[in-house]
Amino acid sequence: MDKIAIALLHYPVKGRTGETIASAITNLDLHDIARAAKTYGALRFYAATPLTDQRVLAEKIVGHWQNGAGSTYNPDRGRALGLVTVVPGMAEIVSDLESRVGKTVRIVATSAVESPRSIAYNAFRQHLETPENDKSVFLLCLGTAWGLSDEFMEAADFVLAPIRGKSGYNHLSVRCAAAIMLDRLLGDDAPGVY
Amino acid sequence: MDKIAIALLHYPVKGRTGETIASAITNLDLHDIARAAKTYGALRFYAATPLTDQRVLAEKIVGHWQNGAGSTYNPDRGRALGLVTVVPGMAEIVSDLESRVGKTVRIVATSAVESPRSIAYNAFRQHLETPENDKSVFLLCLGTAWGLSDEFMEAADFVLAPIRGKSGYNHLSVRCAAAIMLDRLLGDDAPGVY
Repeated sequence: MDKIAIALLHYPVKGRTGETIASAITNLDLHDIARAAKTYGALRFYAATPLTDQRVLAEKIVGHWQNGAGSTYNPDRGRALGLVTVVPGMAEIVSDLESRVGKTVRIVATSAVESPRSIAYNAFRQHLETPENDKSVFLLCLGTAWGLSDEFMEAADFVLAPIRGKSGYNHLSVRCAAAIMLDRLLGDDAPGVY
Repeated sequence: MDKIAIALLHYPVKGRTGETIASAITNLDLHDIARAAKTYGALRFYAATPLTDQRVLAEKIVGHWQNGAGSTYNPDRGRALGLVTVVPGMAEIVSDLESRVGKTVRIVATSAVESPRSIAYNAFRQHLETPENDKSVFLLCLGTAWGLSDEFMEAADFVLAPIRGKSGYNHLSVRCAAAIMLDRLLGDDAPGVY
């Protein structure tokens, strides 16, 4: 496919009471989502935060495994974290991704809440496979904390349906949600992909 | 379905050089897998380690969210961690699960490595849906560290195929692997489940 990149946004996301906040970087989010992105062949994994000290922290984590002591201790981890680019926000993501792949970036928002715009995964897989989309690259965007802001959702090109199981409960970690999304779109169990 | 429980084993698992070890409990494994188990309606999530001090630690984490300060700070987290039972090993898991559901426990081993016994997810979903399996409950077993021991794999009733993406790389975290397995078996995108 080579049409999918993934972004983890720490701003603009919702806080506990719905207000827009910048959340903190979580070490294991970077590791787990990088490992899933590498497994599923995502083009790039962007970790975005407007907070300079948080970007410095994220780059230190990533650098440890890419070039530091971690790269010899566990080279597989370094290969995954090599996919990570730490950036301030969406403008830098879109610019970097467009220059890397030479295609138009389409923003795909995700949420744990159903919206009138929600597209089911099977419909989105079919959409990805249409030939006119060969000129586009799709950026799966996940929000930390209580999810992407309403303004972000409204401005996105697509909104993916919430991941649902058998129960009414859907409080997956963002790490697990990212892995499931990539598996549904690019895994060897996804209908029509292989 | 109500036929699936999940177990995270810290023994018997492989260490870096293939020897059988007991690995350490990871806080976020308990959280993330409990949240996925609750989302997908798994019957129970067992965290197993033969090390007494590690079980005390795991029970302290779980108790904080079930009954302690965490239960009022984030009740949704408490609901998920209410699915967790901390046990020494497989004997206690099988005994507890059989007494809870009154069915025969069938052991389903998972691995990142292909084996001659590996069953594809679509074949396993069909197997779960056959009426003769109404008297069985299936325990998905995941190993920490470098995976379940060879002896454990050989003794299991079933071995699920490795989760694969587009690349040859498959180093998912155990948290993400558990969530993807539950999604493939019980998610609203899995063919034939709904």
